[in-house]
Amino acid sequence: MNLGTIFLSETVGTALLLLLGGGVVANVLLAKSKGKDGGWLLINFGWGLAVYIGVLASYASGAHLNPAVTLGVITSGATEFVPGIAVTPVSTLTYIAAQMVGAMLGAALVYLSYKKHFDETESQADKLGVFSTGPGIRSSGWNLVTEVIGTFVLVLMVMAFGRNGDATGLASLGALPVALVVLAIGASLGGPTGYAINPARDLGPRIVHALLPIRGKGGSDWSYAWVPVVGPLLGGALAGWASAFLLPIL
Amino acid sequence: MNLGTIFLSETVGTALLLLLGGGVVANVLLAKSKGKDGGWLLINFGWGLAVYIGVLASYASGAHLNPAVTLGVITSGATEFVPGIAVTPVSTLTYIAAQMVGAMLGAALVYLSYKKHFDETESQADKLGVFSTGPGIRSSGWNLVTEVIGTFVLVLMVMAFGRNGDATGLASLGALPVALVVLAIGASLGGPTGYAINPARDLGPRIVHALLPIRGKGGSDWSYAWVPVVGPLLGGALAGWASAFLLPIL
Amino acid sequence: MNLGTIFLSETVGTALLLLLGGGVVANVLLAKSKGKDGGWLLINFGWGLAVYIGVLASYASGAHLNPAVTLGVITSGATEFVPGIAVTPVSTLTYIAAQMVGAMLGAALVYLSYKKHFDETESQADKLGVFSTGPGIRSSGWNLVTEVIGTFVLVLMVMAFGRNGDATGLASLGALPVALVVLAIGASLGGPTGYAINPARDLGPRIVHALLPIRGKGGSDWSYAWVPVVGPLLGGALAGWASAFLLPIL
Amino acid sequence: MNLGTIFLSETVGTALLLLLGGGVVANVLLAKSKGKDGGWLLINFGWGLAVYIGVLASYASGAHLNPAVTLGVITSGATEFVPGIAVTPVSTLTYIAAQMVGAMLGAALVYLSYKKHFDETESQADKLGVFSTGPGIRSSGWNLVTEVIGTFVLVLMVMAFGRNGDATGLASLGALPVALVVLAIGASLGGPTGYAINPARDLGPRIVHALLPIRGKGGSDWSYAWVPVVGPLLGGALAGWASAFLLPIL
Repeated sequence: MNLGTIFLSETVGTALLLLLGGGVVANVLLAKSKGKDGGWLLINFGWGLAVYIGVLASYASGAHLNPAVTLGVITSGATEFVPGIAVTPVSTLTYIAAQMVGAMLGAALVYLSYKKHFDETESQADKLGVFSTGPGIRSSGWNLVTEVIGTFVLVLMVMAFGRNGDATGLASLGALPVALVVLAIGASLGGPTGYAINPARDLGPRIVHALLPIRGKGGSDWSYAWVPVVGPLLGGALAGWASAFLLPIL
Repeated sequence: MNLGTIFLSETVGTALLLLLGGGVVANVLLAKSKGKDGGWLLINFGWGLAVYIGVLASYASGAHLNPAVTLGVITSGATEFVPGIAVTPVSTLTYIAAQMVGAMLGAALVYLSYKKHFDETESQADKLGVFSTGPGIRSSGWNLVTEVIGTFVLVLMVMAFGRNGDATGLASLGALPVALVVLAIGASLGGPTGYAINPARDLGPRIVHALLPIRGKGGSDWSYAWVPVVGPLLGGALAGWASAFLLPIL
Repeated sequence: MNLGTIFLSETVGTALLLLLGGGVVANVLLAKSKGKDGGWLLINFGWGLAVYIGVLASYASGAHLNPAVTLGVITSGATEFVPGIAVTPVSTLTYIAAQMVGAMLGAALVYLSYKKHFDETESQADKLGVFSTGPGIRSSGWNLVTEVIGTFVLVLMVMAFGRNGDATGLASLGALPVALVVLAIGASLGGPTGYAINPARDLGPRIVHALLPIRGKGGSDWSYAWVPVVGPLLGGALAGWASAFLLPIL
Repeated sequence: MNLGTIFLSETVGTALLLLLGGGVVANVLLAKSKGKDGGWLLINFGWGLAVYIGVLASYASGAHLNPAVTLGVITSGATEFVPGIAVTPVSTLTYIAAQMVGAMLGAALVYLSYKKHFDETESQADKLGVFSTGPGIRSSGWNLVTEVIGTFVLVLMVMAFGRNGDATGLASLGALPVALVVLAIGASLGGPTGYAINPARDLGPRIVHALLPIRGKGGSDWSYAWVPVVGPLLGGALAGWASAFLLPIL
């Protein structure tokens, strides 16, 4: 496998992740959508299944889809991302660049899918909420804590799945465990910050929100933008390190 | 396997798909039903599990259940629909005819199951909604875009599952991944148009709505009927073509 | 395996089915319960998972748990219920008697679990609803149609699973498909009659409702009681017969 | 495997169980959380998936995570907890101590994740509810009955899974059945008492509630605290004994 295939795989997977993940938020928030006010569990299922489909489409590259996972693989001490792709600055940048491109592409596809509903939605916060996360109570420090803990759980479980090699054995159902983990994190730890737990998932669409000519849009809340980047990177790095420490039990 | 078996298999599978899929909409929309106003996630689960059961009952023919899938298999460059059934105009028509017959049969069974509730429901739109989809905001162009994108995701994943050969290995749980994909598309991309993503699923029941003596029914909204036929066919054709292009990663 | 083991297995499985199935209805209907007004999807999940657990506990006897399944196995032309247990009048009665005993036992356990909540609930209909089904719109003929169709789908799929032999291969996850089928039937076809689709599930608890000293209870609605017995038996018999006819595709 | 590994495994698993289980309650109950008033099914999914993840992280020790399970293994007559760890007073205490430490750790992490939302929540009952269970209708005797029945179902199924050896065969999906069992118990039997069904899950966090400097907190309801300890232990012991009796069918 070469870096071009890795790039294609991560781009397609992350684009599907954001198309379906951003899509469920649009469905719940935007005016005249059939899932309007569909509830938090609907959002959790939407994002969980977005992960399921993104991972299915991205097996070739190990389905990181998330710079926090890519970083966690590094801090776990692994020497290859997938067989034949050594952990180097170039391969790391390939993963992260593809995740950013894919996330931006997916967010743009959400906009196309819900174009008329964006046009008829008044709330600027709801329009931004389709793209990026924002906290229930604004407090950079505590918001960061929540994102670190949530991402720690995600990346720790991803490391455990990688060790067990489930994906190979179970084919398409092998993408289900990580989807269930994200569903769990959303249901349980998503309350304070909306569970970014992925820098590309939050920053990529925020850039798209700033670039697209969305009717009646407000600002892109750049003052908060560092939290869902730094928190997940910290949580992922810690989880990779912890996974090495917990090797005897995972 | 002969074309008669294919026809029977696709008919039974698509009939179950529409019986259970149309049934959940009836449950949520019609007067005095126990699931009245049960929410979008209930509808998503109903349709997702309708796919699960339809696919289980239709393994013999590869469980297309959808002309967009049949078309996607062709544009992917496949030479056989299932082993022993070559892709020809006759076999293609056999699939699509069975899907239309099955969808009409399933929709009629929904009417029988909910007969008294149709009688006591006032809204003509709700009665039509049990049979066919309609948009939240009417705009043929953008509604078409949404249906193309949703069907693209569906058929792309179906192509990926076909390559991996999961169905064979996992027996009855092998029908779960495609059910999860449809659940995901409904949760995420169903907001604007109600996710037809299948020409037979929409057109067959619309014809049944026009033919059945439903008490107090209104028109069958024929002006919109081409969108959930053309959109899914376009999306399916594109996905089949893309699946050949994405072969290295799927 | 002897008939005593069959009896024990069907009794335990059906008791768990009714304890968990009746329990979720109690949770949604009775006063001061934490799941009060939790919605139709909650009820569907409760019953689906009740089937999952009942089937897991009843593998030894093939987990019929339902006279409509036992009848469907007979009309399918099978000569044994499980290896070593021939289809005879005695074995058939053993299955059905155990299902009735188990259903009554499970319903009594629901009463014990929710004793104080029965005491504080005013509605006589809600108290009966924990035990037995009742229609949204009373119409014996159409209610029968709905029960026949719902049970037909259930027993047809059970026949298909039996042929594929999934349970053996997948161990505890092998009970999942039938649970998903019941979840689907509830979501889609449960609206008009509350999906008894099982004579023992309805009649056994109705007898328990009549016998128990429930505070402020009303009548047990015996005039409707034949519908959820006859409908499921008809549907099950038809599905067994149809499964033989559909052998080439199932 | 040594007792230190057992301790680490049970601690990590129970901490994840309480972090995600307590987290979903915080999400539904606390002020300005995104899942506020998300409903009982959301809580059931949160706890079910908390079990899923806790079990995944705790395979090394057999994933008891619950003194009622540890006790049930003993009353079932087993001589080893996992291969190489004999059932002795020391190993039993190791399991239970780790479960208590893990539960306290998880509850403290919930507090950190939702710190600002605890600060802005008025209701003292809601703040306690994130940590420990309380009954809908207070009645020690009947509350005990409900906890005994719920835990009996849980531990009986855990014993059945252990016998079938599913976990080994299915890797990460092998943790799904027990998660579905807990989801079922919550949906069906959680209405009266909030389904502690685990002494460590209730007592550990209650101690943490008493110790932490939570703004505006009330008492820790110690008068009820014995019910979710004694009930689950009784139910677990009974289920272990019953599993030996039911060996021919499980």
